[in-house]
Amino acid sequence: MLLSSLVKEILLMSNVLEICKNARKASYELACTSGPRKEKALYKIAQKLIENQDKIIEANKIDLENGRNSGLSNALLDRLALNPQRISDMAKGLEEIAVLPDPVGEVVKMWKRPNGLEIGQKRVPLGVVSVIYEARPNVTADVAGLTLKSGNCAVLKGGKEAIHSNLAIIEQIKTALMEEGIPEAAVQLISDTNRETTLELLKMDEYIDLLIPRGGEGLKKLILENSTIPVILATAGNCHVYVDEYADIDMAKDIVINAKTQRPGVCNAVESLVIHRNIAEKFIPVIVKELDKFGVEMRVCDATMDIINRQKMAVNGKVASASEEDYGTEYHDLILSVRTVATFEEAVSHINTYGTRHSEAIVTENYERARCFHEGVDAAAVYVNASTRFTDGFEFGFGAEIGISNQKLHARGPIGLEQLTSLKYIIFGDGQIRS
Amino acid sequence: MLLSSLVKEILLMSNVLEICKNARKASYELACTSGPRKEKALYKIAQKLIENQDKIIEANKIDLENGRNSGLSNALLDRLALNPQRISDMAKGLEEIAVLPDPVGEVVKMWKRPNGLEIGQKRVPLGVVSVIYEARPNVTADVAGLTLKSGNCAVLKGGKEAIHSNLAIIEQIKTALMEEGIPEAAVQLISDTNRETTLELLKMDEYIDLLIPRGGEGLKKLILENSTIPVILATAGNCHVYVDEYADIDMAKDIVINAKTQRPGVCNAVESLVIHRNIAEKFIPVIVKELDKFGVEMRVCDATMDIINRQKMAVNGKVASASEEDYGTEYHDLILSVRTVATFEEAVSHINTYGTRHSEAIVTENYERARCFHEGVDAAAVYVNASTRFTDGFEFGFGAEIGISNQKLHARGPIGLEQLTSLKYIIFGDGQIRS
Repeated sequence: MLLSSLVKEILLMSNVLEICKNARKASYELACTSGPRKEKALYKIAQKLIENQDKIIEANKIDLENGRNSGLSNALLDRLALNPQRISDMAKGLEEIAVLPDPVGEVVKMWKRPNGLEIGQKRVPLGVVSVIYEARPNVTADVAGLTLKSGNCAVLKGGKEAIHSNLAIIEQIKTALMEEGIPEAAVQLISDTNRETTLELLKMDEYIDLLIPRGGEGLKKLILENSTIPVILATAGNCHVYVDEYADIDMAKDIVINAKTQRPGVCNAVESLVIHRNIAEKFIPVIVKELDKFGVEMRVCDATMDIINRQKMAVNGKVASASEEDYGTEYHDLILSVRTVATFEEAVSHINTYGTRHSEAIVTENYERARCFHEGVDAAAVYVNASTRFTDGFEFGFGAEIGISNQKLHARGPIGLEQLTSLKYIIFGDGQIRS
Repeated sequence: MLLSSLVKEILLMSNVLEICKNARKASYELACTSGPRKEKALYKIAQKLIENQDKIIEANKIDLENGRNSGLSNALLDRLALNPQRISDMAKGLEEIAVLPDPVGEVVKMWKRPNGLEIGQKRVPLGVVSVIYEARPNVTADVAGLTLKSGNCAVLKGGKEAIHSNLAIIEQIKTALMEEGIPEAAVQLISDTNRETTLELLKMDEYIDLLIPRGGEGLKKLILENSTIPVILATAGNCHVYVDEYADIDMAKDIVINAKTQRPGVCNAVESLVIHRNIAEKFIPVIVKELDKFGVEMRVCDATMDIINRQKMAVNGKVASASEEDYGTEYHDLILSVRTVATFEEAVSHINTYGTRHSEAIVTENYERARCFHEGVDAAAVYVNASTRFTDGFEFGFGAEIGISNQKLHARGPIGLEQLTSLKYIIFGDGQIRS
């Protein structure tokens, strides 16, 4: 592949410190860039990606070949692969971000002090956001779209498996930015994909305001242990559905099946079913039959096993005894742990003990139980009578997201445009001094 | 000193992991504790501190004696010392926190989705907050008050210089909590004051939601580099007052003098004065004379020095040439760097380059300059025509604070009760599943 002069330039500038300093500098200009200009630039990026898809696919072929040679799994190769459809999806994603409301500039509160000072809180970009990710090259375009729209400069570091694809995508992004008069340093890719560069990046707290890892547990651990930059973890979720003794059995069945089977590989899928023992005799036969029909493997507590055995249920799939470990496991697969509890309090305590504070649901017709579940369960999203699968930027009505956080600082749940901003105090006086 | 059985118990339970696990467990109960009960407990703590002040002062004497023997400076000994007045101040501080509005439970937003799901954001405690601090024993009571009121469990680690005082204070806090039926683990002190314990504490991300260091730069660096827990830094500030060419000279003079001299040792005091050159000839003689009167040393740029020399001003204090380093220095003393700039943009750029994103002020009568300063300056608090000294929980109308953050994540500015909470999504459905 012939390298364009822009790609050569990007490759030359591999100095992490320089990239971060440029991002900080550009962040002041980008913070003052109007909404319509950012919107126009996003459309232009989408257009460039489509127009130059052959170049991108050509670069992607090199990554795919390297990947095959180095023995990447088929699943990883599939995540890496780009084709006209996937590039069109990337472009559509950018256009969807373009038309979302600009989060910057909103004054969320304003009040007057007795001394006459008027104090307000204004939504402003965070400044510089860095995202470290693994194989999927579409993340490059998605993240660039979200950071640009929210007025933040992006410092991206993708995996080495996707480096040629990422460079080809970033070239189109930079060309579009330049054509729209937006600082080119608004989106930068670190072309060095080795671990030392990541470690260097993690210490750039002077220039980077937020770091988001997108990838496996190994990457997250590396970042958590080494970063001096504030981190938001987009983590996996060990989510529960608790079927209360006052549940509507049909509703409970539909919610459990949806939360487990609609897309089992994602973080808001349910991994564990908790059942009040007063409804277990009725509910377990119904749900076990249905889960079995959907090919879901079950890891069940003794009481559940006892009911299955007593009812002599013919289960095609596997039902095994749950170990302590099962309750703490995120399967991301058609597997579900099942446990009965003697009381509502035991259910809440089980969820707070084994959950990862992501999304938790109760199914109940009882008013007080619904309220107590909301109050007692510690999670980013707590549901009454709905599937946990709704924890998602689009489903909440926010649009695209960079990940879902189950940390408590800054923002829980979907990290979309608003969550990529900060509130700054703006104070208007007429000469006030402090006495 | 005879150790009470409670103090003995606290000393025995020095296992960091055990303390953190207890805090996490207690946090679920504390999160559901009503506002009036927390209020009552705060009054009870205040009462116990006053009633048992002799015990606390006796314990403090040991710390003071140990401090003198180990050569603590007089300044540090003064910060360490407790007397009836200071204990009464601690108690009053707790009573002031008690009557602040309870931040927990507020639903800040609620909306309905087309599928009928109602989604809200409810303010809840963070969970477990850890504060690591140095010599001042009053921090023990202040932090316990703020965390308790906001429904958070506190894991405290004070400096070894204050350990006897801290134990005596924590004994009263725990007694009060027990008498009010609040989990004793709501406020815990780690009695081991060595560095290894701090390092162990910094890895407790499974049990602690937020870590706040209060102390010198060394402590902050240690924490930033080693913590896997999200950190909010309560940092010092390199704050500026920019006197625009359209400033009212009298107002500018009053604001600069107030921001520099009213309390020079604090983080929102001004450290650097930036002057538009079109007003320099008029303003510099006025402000230099006034600063000199207040005993402020000046480190000035060449243009400023030139004006002082040409006007043959008799300056009693010191005026020296500013080095590059001066512009980046937080003096926390009666010293001020002074620089003239050719343009408004240069002023903003100077502030963004040398500032620490804390509090920055412009003095101007020009509408557009005021707006552009708000937009262009990257800081937690941006002022027009007021002293930077107002960046403070009480002055903003929030009440007591645990520190002032100049990070952008979670909350900028004063970290008070509201900033010690998180927003959790609460979702009400009637059987919704995702298609």
